[in-house]
Amino acid sequence: MSGRTRTLADLGESALIERIARRAGHPAGTRWALGIGDDAAILRPRADEELVFSTDALVEDVHFRFDREPPRTVGRRALAVNLSDLAAMGAQPVGALLSLAAPRGLPLRVFDGLVAGFVAEGERFGCPLVGGNLSRAEACHLDVTVIGRCRRGRALRRSGLRAGDRLFVTGNLGGAALARQRADRRQGPLRRVPTPRLAAGRALARLAATRACIDLSDGLATDLAHLLEADGVGAEVDLAAVPAPRGFRAGCRALGLDPVQLLVAGGEDYELLFAMRGSSGVITPRSLSQKLAVPVHEIGRIVSRPGLHGLPSVREGHHF
Amino acid sequence: MSGRTRTLADLGESALIERIARRAGHPAGTRWALGIGDDAAILRPRADEELVFSTDALVEDVHFRFDREPPRTVGRRALAVNLSDLAAMGAQPVGALLSLAAPRGLPLRVFDGLVAGFVAEGERFGCPLVGGNLSRAEACHLDVTVIGRCRRGRALRRSGLRAGDRLFVTGNLGGAALARQRADRRQGPLRRVPTPRLAAGRALARLAATRACIDLSDGLATDLAHLLEADGVGAEVDLAAVPAPRGFRAGCRALGLDPVQLLVAGGEDYELLFAMRGSSGVITPRSLSQKLAVPVHEIGRIVSRPGLHGLPSVREGHHF
Repeated sequence: MSGRTRTLADLGESALIERIARRAGHPAGTRWALGIGDDAAILRPRADEELVFSTDALVEDVHFRFDREPPRTVGRRALAVNLSDLAAMGAQPVGALLSLAAPRGLPLRVFDGLVAGFVAEGERFGCPLVGGNLSRAEACHLDVTVIGRCRRGRALRRSGLRAGDRLFVTGNLGGAALARQRADRRQGPLRRVPTPRLAAGRALARLAATRACIDLSDGLATDLAHLLEADGVGAEVDLAAVPAPRGFRAGCRALGLDPVQLLVAGGEDYELLFAMRGSSGVITPRSLSQKLAVPVHEIGRIVSRPGLHGLPSVREGHHF
Repeated sequence: MSGRTRTLADLGESALIERIARRAGHPAGTRWALGIGDDAAILRPRADEELVFSTDALVEDVHFRFDREPPRTVGRRALAVNLSDLAAMGAQPVGALLSLAAPRGLPLRVFDGLVAGFVAEGERFGCPLVGGNLSRAEACHLDVTVIGRCRRGRALRRSGLRAGDRLFVTGNLGGAALARQRADRRQGPLRRVPTPRLAAGRALARLAATRACIDLSDGLATDLAHLLEADGVGAEVDLAAVPAPRGFRAGCRALGLDPVQLLVAGGEDYELLFAMRGSSGVITPRSLSQKLAVPVHEIGRIVSRPGLHGLPSVREGHHF
């Protein structure tokens, strides 16, 4: 027995849920009246706040591979990409639910790693694991729902753009896509956990000049197109102003990759793309960087003519 | 082209989300400030209410098979089993999120059927589809999160039992398991959509004598054990009092099945199992049936000695 790998099949569903509940602990000092272990979790909201909900999934062999990433990283990333959606709304995390599907033969240490990573990421951003579900499946799926809160009427949305608005982006783009390409070529390990821009999103929600916001998951071109759709406007982007990480172009050259494609269509940046009122002349990238506590670059402006101007055409869609 | 089956791969992710949003419509007349299409859905809660959250999944070839059930039934069931968890809390549905994973080759009419069933079930029980996610995967997964509300402090829980409490169950048990066995033998179609006992759950939450409640998904023996766990008590069950549907015993005999096993361990009943204070002498199954607007049977009582007394032993767990 001693050398045999223990798997989920060695434990019943109840024991596995108990294992998650022990790891998660009780969401103390929060608005949760009840956490894991009942039919549902109970939240006590306040009347002056709105609650926002988002859901996103990581699927084995589509979004991750266990031979390329430690389970703990996968667990962290599963929560981080969801928190990024809360950041895009300017919301503060309240809690998360994890619906985990896994094969019976999944090693228990992989299960433990997934859960530990998820819980650790939640502790970092004040987002306790309050409930979930376990299902049997051929491949691992981590389906996450996050709940956030913000002051009533102050959530950032994708809509509200007008011609003349100025476009900004946090951090830099293309680095995640380059890292993935590099790991793919070498069949080497990946350890990508994006940093959800939660504090920056909340700061944006407090600024009166903020018009609209989205997080960059599919790539600048695709997500900017989503942002424009709602209002039927277009954007002129200054490609030279789109920030890339240090050494990005050399890194692309070394792999024979087109840096522009990675920059505008690589995806998985999880930075915030947002627009400010055009009349807000006192706002500069430097003042925004200070307010948002993250580097901010101005990359273009909203125009009335629909479409993306100044960006090369890219193929849509990473999922289907 | 005309005869070719259209699949998800023929449409981009945006077009598929747009397709779902059109079907779902806007959650009008509700507390939702924003539904499908942004980074997150926005809810405006009231201060005098609690919100409850639950999540449950249906996995292809584990919980359903497309060659045995129409997609519309699968979609309806995915929401119904989640609403059953809200019923067990005595909560009223507020909205649902659907995270759908599917292969690129899934026929569009299957996708449409899943979504149509989900939305139709939501319309029936006042639970709009307010958000979700689409992922590529080898097998179809429907991961659902439901949000419910109830008056502050009035949610039913699994805990709170004391020796002397009386045990009741809504509806009857074993019918779903028998139907599944029958369909399995014949390799015939299944059309099982349980009725979530939402009105009964809300009525129970209004009664001062209600102690604890759970919905029966895994079977009476397993779920009763869950109910007892929280308080370290036991239960004496009168097996002869556990209600079965008409013709149940004859149906089991015809298939050579043990009716007792199906009754107490068949699962997928989605009835409510609940306890009332033992001193509540005026309460009868008949008065409860009237208040809950569903047949109610008294099946046993809570005792201080831990364990299930009066029930045959069963194997735990349908999932791992």
